[in-house]
Amino acid sequence: MAYGTITLVGAGPGAADLITVRGLRAIQRANIILYDALSGEELLQYASHDAELIYVGKRCGKHSLKQPDINALLVQSALRAEHVVRLKGGDPFVFGRGHEELTYLRERGIHVDLVPGVSSTTSLALLQQVPLTRRHISESFWVLTGTTKHHQLSQDIGTAVKTNATLVILMGMRRLKDICELLKREGKSTTPVMIIENGSRPDERIHLGTVDSITDIHNEAGISGPGIIIIGEVVGLHPEYARQRALQNIAI
Amino acid sequence: MAYGTITLVGAGPGAADLITVRGLRAIQRANIILYDALSGEELLQYASHDAELIYVGKRCGKHSLKQPDINALLVQSALRAEHVVRLKGGDPFVFGRGHEELTYLRERGIHVDLVPGVSSTTSLALLQQVPLTRRHISESFWVLTGTTKHHQLSQDIGTAVKTNATLVILMGMRRLKDICELLKREGKSTTPVMIIENGSRPDERIHLGTVDSITDIHNEAGISGPGIIIIGEVVGLHPEYARQRALQNIAI
Repeated sequence: MAYGTITLVGAGPGAADLITVRGLRAIQRANIILYDALSGEELLQYASHDAELIYVGKRCGKHSLKQPDINALLVQSALRAEHVVRLKGGDPFVFGRGHEELTYLRERGIHVDLVPGVSSTTSLALLQQVPLTRRHISESFWVLTGTTKHHQLSQDIGTAVKTNATLVILMGMRRLKDICELLKREGKSTTPVMIIENGSRPDERIHLGTVDSITDIHNEAGISGPGIIIIGEVVGLHPEYARQRALQNIAI
Repeated sequence: MAYGTITLVGAGPGAADLITVRGLRAIQRANIILYDALSGEELLQYASHDAELIYVGKRCGKHSLKQPDINALLVQSALRAEHVVRLKGGDPFVFGRGHEELTYLRERGIHVDLVPGVSSTTSLALLQQVPLTRRHISESFWVLTGTTKHHQLSQDIGTAVKTNATLVILMGMRRLKDICELLKREGKSTTPVMIIENGSRPDERIHLGTVDSITDIHNEAGISGPGIIIIGEVVGLHPEYARQRALQNIAI
């Protein structure tokens, strides 16, 4: 059996033109593309006209393909085509299951090329003009997941709230209140917090507040999309931060 | 005075085709481009034929322009041209001084667009097939700088070595030994370490070892370029790790 090559492409945080040139070229060359919702269907317009497009993601709570099904589909695709692209939202190796897919394919002797994507962990703060590190303010940032396999809050978050690092939390929206409680116990009630929903997309929304106020601010804003939470004094550098805080204090 | 727009573009970790499509379009449209060494001169071939290219980076230990000079040059450029691009290596807001440039320009009423780049913090590990997080192994990663303003080891590193996070250390090569000493004190002598030099470029080199062995391994390899240090059990997933370790043990 001769397999084609599978290229695992990070699609970036959301906006189509934040894909890399290398990723775009892989899409243009692909005979088969397996994609998920996060990776943005807009990118598929660059695919060849006779490319086969296979959706494997979740959408609106509907069931998506399970990982073993995706793995099997990737192997089948590599049997049928010379160039297969697996297009994944964000950075496939940051809380994605890209490495599991890679391992599975490599064990079967399939050649896999990896194309990094712009990671939401660093890019979405930048698009909001917020630096994750800044001299005299923050010397590091710590990227965490809010949701672990057992649906418990990651132990690392318990440690992270005690440090000076800027915190970047993915998949943490359901745990926002718990995370803020941990921060309050460390005396960080007034630390600035930013939530970015649908980052870099036309429907991007941001919420600015403090550890004390952000849960209410977010709840009042209503239904939300996938969000990233950024916690730390650097958030106070957001050009809207001072004005928002003033409004919130008047409102209270 | 009417200013043109300045677009601050992250060039990515090194390889030219790891720039984003949005970044490439900004380069193509630019009348003036200010670039530094890290951002790769290869990208300049995409500039317009009549674009003015201004080098502002460091090279081979020679003096580069100081930040105030770069700031002044940016303002002058925005006075002379409609589209100015400031091309910066990596991600301009991660240990770069992109935010300082942004603040300076914004205060003068100049419109600045921000285009995130692929950050070396996440992409270089991926290109080495190493995931920064992996279920059952690591739930988070912490990005730090080895060199602070006062040439001291960042206090955050002292905290980070005590945690379960994968550590990603930029500008830390001169502090490699000190960092390893801190880890040893925490009983982490056998934790896997990877050094990536000139990441994603044709002259990329990697070194694999443990906290105990990596300093010697790196010293024996000789002269090195700018490097990124990744520390944590996930490094053990590198396809070459087991073989390298076996060779090192035989050598010892």
